[in-house]
Amino acid sequence: MVMRRGEGVMQTKDTVLNWDDLQPVAENGLLDRRAFFKGGAAFAAAMTGYTLGDSTAAQQLVDAPWSRGAGNLVTAYGTPSRYEAEVSRALSNPEGLPRTQHGRTPHHLLNGTFTPNGLHFVISHSGNPDIDPDQHRLVIHGLVQRPLSFTLDALMRYPMVSRMTFLECGGNSAPLFSPEPIDTTAQLIHGLVSCAEWTGVMLSTLLEETGLDPGAKWFVAEGSDSMAPHRSVPIAKALDDTMIALYQNGERLRPDNGYPMRLLLPGWEGNMNVKWLRRIELTDSPAMGYYEARTYAPILPDGKAYRFYFLQEVKSFITHPSPSLNLSGAGLYEISGVAYSGNGRVSKVMVSADGGQTWAKAALQEPVQPKAFTRFRVPWRWDGGPAVLQSRAWDEAGNVQPTRAELIARRGQASRVPTNPLRVLSQHYNGPTSWGIESNGEVRNVYA
Amino acid sequence: MVMRRGEGVMQTKDTVLNWDDLQPVAENGLLDRRAFFKGGAAFAAAMTGYTLGDSTAAQQLVDAPWSRGAGNLVTAYGTPSRYEAEVSRALSNPEGLPRTQHGRTPHHLLNGTFTPNGLHFVISHSGNPDIDPDQHRLVIHGLVQRPLSFTLDALMRYPMVSRMTFLECGGNSAPLFSPEPIDTTAQLIHGLVSCAEWTGVMLSTLLEETGLDPGAKWFVAEGSDSMAPHRSVPIAKALDDTMIALYQNGERLRPDNGYPMRLLLPGWEGNMNVKWLRRIELTDSPAMGYYEARTYAPILPDGKAYRFYFLQEVKSFITHPSPSLNLSGAGLYEISGVAYSGNGRVSKVMVSADGGQTWAKAALQEPVQPKAFTRFRVPWRWDGGPAVLQSRAWDEAGNVQPTRAELIARRGQASRVPTNPLRVLSQHYNGPTSWGIESNGEVRNVYA
Repeated sequence: MVMRRGEGVMQTKDTVLNWDDLQPVAENGLLDRRAFFKGGAAFAAAMTGYTLGDSTAAQQLVDAPWSRGAGNLVTAYGTPSRYEAEVSRALSNPEGLPRTQHGRTPHHLLNGTFTPNGLHFVISHSGNPDIDPDQHRLVIHGLVQRPLSFTLDALMRYPMVSRMTFLECGGNSAPLFSPEPIDTTAQLIHGLVSCAEWTGVMLSTLLEETGLDPGAKWFVAEGSDSMAPHRSVPIAKALDDTMIALYQNGERLRPDNGYPMRLLLPGWEGNMNVKWLRRIELTDSPAMGYYEARTYAPILPDGKAYRFYFLQEVKSFITHPSPSLNLSGAGLYEISGVAYSGNGRVSKVMVSADGGQTWAKAALQEPVQPKAFTRFRVPWRWDGGPAVLQSRAWDEAGNVQPTRAELIARRGQASRVPTNPLRVLSQHYNGPTSWGIESNGEVRNVYA
Repeated sequence: MVMRRGEGVMQTKDTVLNWDDLQPVAENGLLDRRAFFKGGAAFAAAMTGYTLGDSTAAQQLVDAPWSRGAGNLVTAYGTPSRYEAEVSRALSNPEGLPRTQHGRTPHHLLNGTFTPNGLHFVISHSGNPDIDPDQHRLVIHGLVQRPLSFTLDALMRYPMVSRMTFLECGGNSAPLFSPEPIDTTAQLIHGLVSCAEWTGVMLSTLLEETGLDPGAKWFVAEGSDSMAPHRSVPIAKALDDTMIALYQNGERLRPDNGYPMRLLLPGWEGNMNVKWLRRIELTDSPAMGYYEARTYAPILPDGKAYRFYFLQEVKSFITHPSPSLNLSGAGLYEISGVAYSGNGRVSKVMVSADGGQTWAKAALQEPVQPKAFTRFRVPWRWDGGPAVLQSRAWDEAGNVQPTRAELIARRGQASRVPTNPLRVLSQHYNGPTSWGIESNGEVRNVYA
């Protein structure tokens, strides 16, 4: 059905809506974000030569096979539809060979403001330990007045808090440091960031219990998997928003995210959020362990390295459309994605459809929460020609995503391990992501 | 380890905290909710004769079996720990006999502000249809200018919104209408309410596409399971916050919650939120179908019935402690639970530990969102004697939970089907829930 401009006027008791209300606000088809809001312009009717519905099919509902008999059983723990099997984490090492396993979040197949537990990203260096929660202990010792060991049952009696926060690996988005664009999906580029609601006990509460010695300036957190990873954290973070997380998205943590407890450092580098947490040792100086002295100390173009790099900085990327979600013809689409900052709330997201020449302000899904995913959305009328989609986010501290050129000038194209030049260690990419749209509707990563 | 009053003073650079800062604010041990906030009083140290930690165990960490070898594989879709097998829905009809199946949410084993998808409550009258999303259609017809049929792919191009909202069966908490308290869990009493973040297309957006005839005053929504349930909804709700939900907690709806799409009427009776939605017919009057004319038209003591009862009113219940979570000795505990209102935001929750004689204000977990679960928390020092815990919630529209006596005076002890006096149809219980604590720490439902 072809709709002509001028059709589609609708009347209700309170509103008269018209296609002409929809104004472009940037080049290449970006429309006013306020088209989203009730009482705003008629978004859906504003299509030229295209309709999403099919009037010929109305009132022709026929009973499909699933409407003609009893359905499946309700189960004690529900699972996704069998038609959604491709909505899964991309695994780097599915056989579990003796090296790191990654599971990357399929952002292009999700929507909303956080990640369901089964699809939260995972990096596991020595597999997921199968911890008996009744035997697990959390020990806090070192420069404290009373070293203490906590059972899970003991922790459950303390005051708890809940908060949404993203977690991101310092190496997320590293493919965008490569000299040429990589032809892959948002999942494989950006899949090492996720967002969840975490509930647990503030570390500051437990430190009130143990007391602190005046010399305590850092704490070292250690996991109980066989690799016993550890990271050092300044005491100020311990007394600010550090949590011993016991629940993720309402239920107990999953084994791949630290069951029965993990450290949560909102806004800070993923590996510092130690999973399967068993020890917090208060110290006067950092441990300078493997992760902080080597792997996560990015080497700069002049040969020096960051000593520490805690913060995950302001960032955004478009999830819809993105590679593998090809467009099915000119007309209206919603552009949406996620933005976040380790500094606090996202304050603004701008979207471009012409590779950064002109920009339109995106709508932010309320409530915008600090250090959490913020879903942004903007309506877009694709004219069927080439387009390059980008997003750029600001946070409430005034930070903005750098351009890719700025970032590479600062960090180098790709920092590498001196003893192994093939191993790319580039980290903390928070520049823009560009999705090129071809006339046939295909979407690919490009540099623009 | 026994701690004496006067121990536990801690010093950090900025604060000197002392047990004496913790003031009771109501009888039977309820403490100031501000003990939760950083910079407030030392909650954790405020224990008399009891400590949650064990200083003798500090620095005695030994490697458990799971710390001595490689762990389990990262999987494409994660699952809970095998130690959490009891965290599951309680099923009313696990064999799927030809009657309704219920799956109730285990609130006492969860924490945070919403329900993970696998544990969201389910009521399925003819099983969960196994719908092929590519074949499914949503038809909007009746008193519209252009009847339209939408594929899922078409709906995916429309502007979307995300919102947290609770869903509650009108029959949730019906056991509390019984003349005597029922000795069971919060799951079996209150398990027919859950909360999730839903993402989808506003129905008002699609009605802009179809246009409305002036006579359209209602719409009738129909599901595609073999029972083809349907409910009538006033047009004002359609133009307000009604959503065609496609995603639940970030991923596609689960089959037991309406995959690939359901109607979402925030704050309104659960069965109206038609799952497996296939038809929306605009009409000039309600259909007076089975559910609205019979099952969900509660019969009052004078023999009359409500014609419609859309709203789920302000309500709260304590999840921790609650039956099966028995207390393990006198000392400090956190009392927490969920509150919600179909009218909007929860504005206040009061908690009593003496059966409603005195009350303390609970802390509300931010952000408080309209028509969504609000987690409330209050610290409590149990002295080891009998106690009766209750909560009472207010919403921003000024409504408050009625007492149980008020509710029964208005509704009757239990309304019943005239032709089947054993079938209790009492609905919309939103009075308080009382948990009695015995000296041995056992928790039971009581009436107080």
